[in-house]
Amino acid sequence: MTKEQIAKGFSGLQDHICKSLGDFDQNASFSSDDWQRTEGGGGKTRTIKEGSFIEKGGVAFSKVFGPVTNKMAEQLKLSGSDFFATGVSVVLHSRSANHPIIHMNVRYFEIDSETYWFGGGIDLTPIYIDIASAKNFHIQLKEVCDRYDSSMYPEFKKWADSYFYLPHRKETRGIGGIFFDQLRASESMSKEQIFQFCIDLGQLFPKLYIGQLNHAIDTQANDKANKWQLLRRSRYVEFNLLHDRGTKFGIYSGGRTESILMSMPPMAKWEYNYVPKPGTPEHDTQSLLKASVDWINI
Amino acid sequence: MTKEQIAKGFSGLQDHICKSLGDFDQNASFSSDDWQRTEGGGGKTRTIKEGSFIEKGGVAFSKVFGPVTNKMAEQLKLSGSDFFATGVSVVLHSRSANHPIIHMNVRYFEIDSETYWFGGGIDLTPIYIDIASAKNFHIQLKEVCDRYDSSMYPEFKKWADSYFYLPHRKETRGIGGIFFDQLRASESMSKEQIFQFCIDLGQLFPKLYIGQLNHAIDTQANDKANKWQLLRRSRYVEFNLLHDRGTKFGIYSGGRTESILMSMPPMAKWEYNYVPKPGTPEHDTQSLLKASVDWINI
Repeated sequence: MTKEQIAKGFSGLQDHICKSLGDFDQNASFSSDDWQRTEGGGGKTRTIKEGSFIEKGGVAFSKVFGPVTNKMAEQLKLSGSDFFATGVSVVLHSRSANHPIIHMNVRYFEIDSETYWFGGGIDLTPIYIDIASAKNFHIQLKEVCDRYDSSMYPEFKKWADSYFYLPHRKETRGIGGIFFDQLRASESMSKEQIFQFCIDLGQLFPKLYIGQLNHAIDTQANDKANKWQLLRRSRYVEFNLLHDRGTKFGIYSGGRTESILMSMPPMAKWEYNYVPKPGTPEHDTQSLLKASVDWINI
Repeated sequence: MTKEQIAKGFSGLQDHICKSLGDFDQNASFSSDDWQRTEGGGGKTRTIKEGSFIEKGGVAFSKVFGPVTNKMAEQLKLSGSDFFATGVSVVLHSRSANHPIIHMNVRYFEIDSETYWFGGGIDLTPIYIDIASAKNFHIQLKEVCDRYDSSMYPEFKKWADSYFYLPHRKETRGIGGIFFDQLRASESMSKEQIFQFCIDLGQLFPKLYIGQLNHAIDTQANDKANKWQLLRRSRYVEFNLLHDRGTKFGIYSGGRTESILMSMPPMAKWEYNYVPKPGTPEHDTQSLLKASVDWINI
């Protein structure tokens, strides 16, 4: 399993995800930007806007390589002279407040052709949490994990709970999902299997998102829901810019800003000290933004 | 000059600024939040919303003290057992795209009643840069600095250029202003004089802001200007959450989130790879977002 095969597989995932989303949301407008990195490699950033379901989103593929820079060594706490990194990142901001924000990422990192690891994750940020949909989301993630090892879902779910957390707000970003990093071949899983797990996640992704849109769509504009959506999106911004290690690593190590920040929402709102009133749907959602909720057995 | 006298002076500045802004923007609604810090001290956060001129803003005073925490020592790279910190921070987001975002901060920090320093700054982020107004803004800052030492404005202006900079966008936050830190008594300036300089800045602040609003107000809603304003505000968000040392220190050391993030705009917009077209007012402003513009002699 060479790094080039992995990059090719990830590039194929980008195509698959864009094709599936395009077939589903036929009014969405897709654009594509090829970019090169001076020090080696490049990527293709595909952005989506103004769909019936997806208001703004992006599906980014990158394959970059070259000498390990000081900033990279510092941020990743690694030593070595040359690196190779490839990955796919997706963030979709839904138009309706009834539909969630969703994120997926799979990535592969290699140093000096010796050390390598995979990382990735999928997590969901509903504007209003629907328990049945949340449960269904987690069941589907567990099914993919269980094809490989039954210990994976519980471990990766816990990791997501602690990763997608805003300490300054004492709340999770959404209902979590799975997150993993530093995954290497072990007795229970070969390198090929880890790669295949990443591919499986990428193939699940569009189904997972589309499945979340299946509940009745509230077509009536609702000022209260729109405001709540804008407020939830500002928390998404806060998480990504203050806490997300991927975003911070990208920005501080001189990555391509527009590709990294394609995760930003189309619009966001801040209001001083907004606290939803008890008994409202907003308050119900807020009270579920806690780590360690067992969504499958809720 | 005791720390309590300094805190009292800063608290008075908060009153002065709120009074001046309230007299000027009589439709603005002011609220006040008193808060306590478990480990010692507290503050008063005054927020402003829905004025004719100020859409969203805040004037925060704090006086906090207690044992130096590990996070604090790490972030500030200091040693010592007890600290005392007091300051006033102001951020105003104007309603009209013809009016700027403005920020001011003065602060005093003391360790173990031995070491101390003052810091602060004022900077302006016009949505559309008007050269005459920008020049006027810098002239007024220079006048206050020159009352103390003619070397201050050039030094503090340069500091602002490098502080209020977004490396990932290769642009300044706005037209800069002045920024200073680690200011202690020296041969040329006593502790009392540094304190008085901070007070002078705080007293200048409302005049400075109101002076910026004096050009003709475009009362016609203009979609293009509104969009540009929302996009500029998202850069403000990026600066504050990714780069501003004050915000990051506050958030990562467990400060009061709502007071720190009162700097966030009421609304912000992100659009993938938006680049203003040459020949437009948006492009003219973008091309002036560079450090080292000599605004006084432009």
